[in-house]
Amino acid sequence: MPPRRPLTAGFDFMMTPQQYLIEHQARHIGQLCDYLRLPSVSAQASHREDVGRCAAWIEAHCREIGLNTELHPTRGHPIVLARTPRRPGRRPHFLVYGHYDVQPPEPIELWASPPFEPRVEGHSLFARGASDNKGQHFAHLKAVEAVLATGGELPCDLTFLIEGEEEVGSANLVPFLKQHRKSLRCDAVVISDTGMPARTLPALTYALRGIAALEVIVRGPSRDLHSGIFGGSLDNPAMALARMLAALRDRRGRITVPGFYDQVRPLTRNERRQLARLPFNERSYARFLGVPKLFGEAGFTAWEQRSARPTLEVNGLTSGYQGEGSKTIVPAAASAKLTMRLVPDQSPDVIARLVARHLKSICPPTVRLETRAGHGGLPYLLEPDTSLARAAMRTLELAFGYAPVLLREGGSIPIVTDFKRVLGADTLLLGLALPDDNAHSPNEKFDLRNFAAGARLGTLLWPELAGALAA
Amino acid sequence: MPPRRPLTAGFDFMMTPQQYLIEHQARHIGQLCDYLRLPSVSAQASHREDVGRCAAWIEAHCREIGLNTELHPTRGHPIVLARTPRRPGRRPHFLVYGHYDVQPPEPIELWASPPFEPRVEGHSLFARGASDNKGQHFAHLKAVEAVLATGGELPCDLTFLIEGEEEVGSANLVPFLKQHRKSLRCDAVVISDTGMPARTLPALTYALRGIAALEVIVRGPSRDLHSGIFGGSLDNPAMALARMLAALRDRRGRITVPGFYDQVRPLTRNERRQLARLPFNERSYARFLGVPKLFGEAGFTAWEQRSARPTLEVNGLTSGYQGEGSKTIVPAAASAKLTMRLVPDQSPDVIARLVARHLKSICPPTVRLETRAGHGGLPYLLEPDTSLARAAMRTLELAFGYAPVLLREGGSIPIVTDFKRVLGADTLLLGLALPDDNAHSPNEKFDLRNFAAGARLGTLLWPELAGALAA
Repeated sequence: MPPRRPLTAGFDFMMTPQQYLIEHQARHIGQLCDYLRLPSVSAQASHREDVGRCAAWIEAHCREIGLNTELHPTRGHPIVLARTPRRPGRRPHFLVYGHYDVQPPEPIELWASPPFEPRVEGHSLFARGASDNKGQHFAHLKAVEAVLATGGELPCDLTFLIEGEEEVGSANLVPFLKQHRKSLRCDAVVISDTGMPARTLPALTYALRGIAALEVIVRGPSRDLHSGIFGGSLDNPAMALARMLAALRDRRGRITVPGFYDQVRPLTRNERRQLARLPFNERSYARFLGVPKLFGEAGFTAWEQRSARPTLEVNGLTSGYQGEGSKTIVPAAASAKLTMRLVPDQSPDVIARLVARHLKSICPPTVRLETRAGHGGLPYLLEPDTSLARAAMRTLELAFGYAPVLLREGGSIPIVTDFKRVLGADTLLLGLALPDDNAHSPNEKFDLRNFAAGARLGTLLWPELAGALAA
Repeated sequence: MPPRRPLTAGFDFMMTPQQYLIEHQARHIGQLCDYLRLPSVSAQASHREDVGRCAAWIEAHCREIGLNTELHPTRGHPIVLARTPRRPGRRPHFLVYGHYDVQPPEPIELWASPPFEPRVEGHSLFARGASDNKGQHFAHLKAVEAVLATGGELPCDLTFLIEGEEEVGSANLVPFLKQHRKSLRCDAVVISDTGMPARTLPALTYALRGIAALEVIVRGPSRDLHSGIFGGSLDNPAMALARMLAALRDRRGRITVPGFYDQVRPLTRNERRQLARLPFNERSYARFLGVPKLFGEAGFTAWEQRSARPTLEVNGLTSGYQGEGSKTIVPAAASAKLTMRLVPDQSPDVIARLVARHLKSICPPTVRLETRAGHGGLPYLLEPDTSLARAAMRTLELAFGYAPVLLREGGSIPIVTDFKRVLGADTLLLGLALPDDNAHSPNEKFDLRNFAAGARLGTLLWPELAGALAA
């Protein structure tokens, strides 16, 4: 089916895309509300049909605004592809990623209004999925609509890839990317699915931490032993584990595993300066976390500690008796689940091996140690000094009217490394979510000013990126 | 109902009690088998009637051998009292404690023969309860039978107190003791419900460890936090707990809590000499425990470490995510269940307070600490140099034909401190169980040579103890 012109085309040819966005803002918000009314909860089998309906809805919408669409079934929920009309000749190609599935809304009783009945209050649009991620990729779609509707010409080809399984692990995405590697090959990926620190601080997230998981099991006696009859004459695996864990970090918050920091690329002066611009109030941050006092690696700010420095965390401890009251045993074993967050250029395999080897070297001869490496994920870094990144920064400033910041994200976004691995493409993370958008929580919202700025960003971004590639 | 003479009385008046025991050994073993056939499993409601039948059986048996009996119902299972015929005048009074209830036999499939079908193989009588505790107190009953049947006269009054709830915590014993305090007041309690290190090492257990329980909870953030987004900028409660636990013990196995050892009564040279006589093979002990290497407080032997020195053990650890795979969180809290085993003259309250106070002093300001004192039990010590203890030692040598050892038990036996507290009486622990008797395990057995020696012990004990009191 050939793309068709929007109905308003005649009048809109008189406008710039930015004017078009202002003119049509109310209508666009109404469309977004229609999109948000579809309860596309990918994690819940009872919403299976809703997820499918939502995929069909966004596919139809992409077609309506002039894109060529494809709905691809997968083993799970379908993937929507929507391409701008292709022009002859070799042109830059960018992929815009988004996801139409949403987190479960539970606990429903904590919502001020029903999660799938969008409600505008002040500048906020409340609904499950408003910010994560329907509102964010919808802004990019509205930008393309604006360009096409005003008769503008894109200096590049765009492919929107909108999946329906991001909230449940994107299991079918990598096979899909591999299968469509040829048509999806692109110069860069743009994702608006992260956040910005404040409305006045638009951000390019240029780095993500990786991860390495390791389970540590310390075994003592062959079975739980009576602590009265035997206690005192053998080591206690839980005590041995405690001693080993305690030895992994020094009092200044530095991981003591030899070689742990060897592959860490130091922060540049410019990066530290950028991170220092981020708003931070120690007391309110501690209150937000609920801790009596902050703690982290000495010599680094909290922003650096949580996004640009590697960590070693105990995620769980298990040993012996955990029920009510007490059971007087020397437990047979004690175990800890560890994950290390990694920064460029650390490797999950190397770090898991280093930690395991160090634990082995400090394990006393009175217990047996077993370590099991778990999942791993590479850290990600887009050189902030590349022409693409600089172009993105310029566009952010134009779209938002504020100087943008370079941001690192402490978590991992596996699809970003997937895009790099399968398509060879870097990703520009241009998040539109605010810290109080309640993603994954009750009363999720999206700031409509960011919706507008995000759409404006979309109208300005492609010429800048295409220009950067040409330069 | 007046006590009646055993049927064999006429002939038995020609014998000593010891000869009588030899003469009637086979018959006594048959009676013990009848006793063991009653599945008096106090923990299992399905055996409620069996427990009652067993109480009635042992009461009737006591009556048959010439004792005055009483069956006292309790809120749980009945308590049997059986007294030797009282003589006029103030005479020494000893209480003999035993229990007719047994541990559940499960797992049944691990038994070589059915747990309630007694089977003799070599010197062993296999059945649930054979050693713990039916066989042991039955030996004392046979001793009294032998004295009475041969026309001998006891130099003291004896009361057998045989309860049916030892394996489920003896909840009704203390109220019963308080209620019958007057008639149960005695010069000492004799219990054969512990062990001896080898058949050639009869033992007087003269000390028991006490206990103090403490739960330690370390709280960090107000909820589990995403370790990617926040990890690195706050302390991890599991790491903080590990560090605190690790600091409780030094590398030489000594508890570092200030004041922890202040109330410990040092072992005398004689005590250490006695403990050094106990058989010990490091390699086979380590193999038995299943540990690669032993560990304990430096400067003390394994026997001393496990019975005569205080300990601090972690019985359980809990924190964060314990399921399959990993969950990348900074857990909100981490907790440990601790128990300290105490030796004379440590007090559970004092020790729990000292440990809690020390933990507080080493708790970093980045987390919150909560400690909850649990149950406590006093350590027990019968001066081994008293005339009663010396008399018991002499009798052990006479009965077994081997020089006895003075033993400390690492566990706690609450009823011993109960007898001390309520009746004001010391307890002589004259255990007849061997280390391989499998108490509480499948294939429990009792060595019939110890059954014979135990009965012989009973015939010799009362004159010795009465004499010691008179001296």
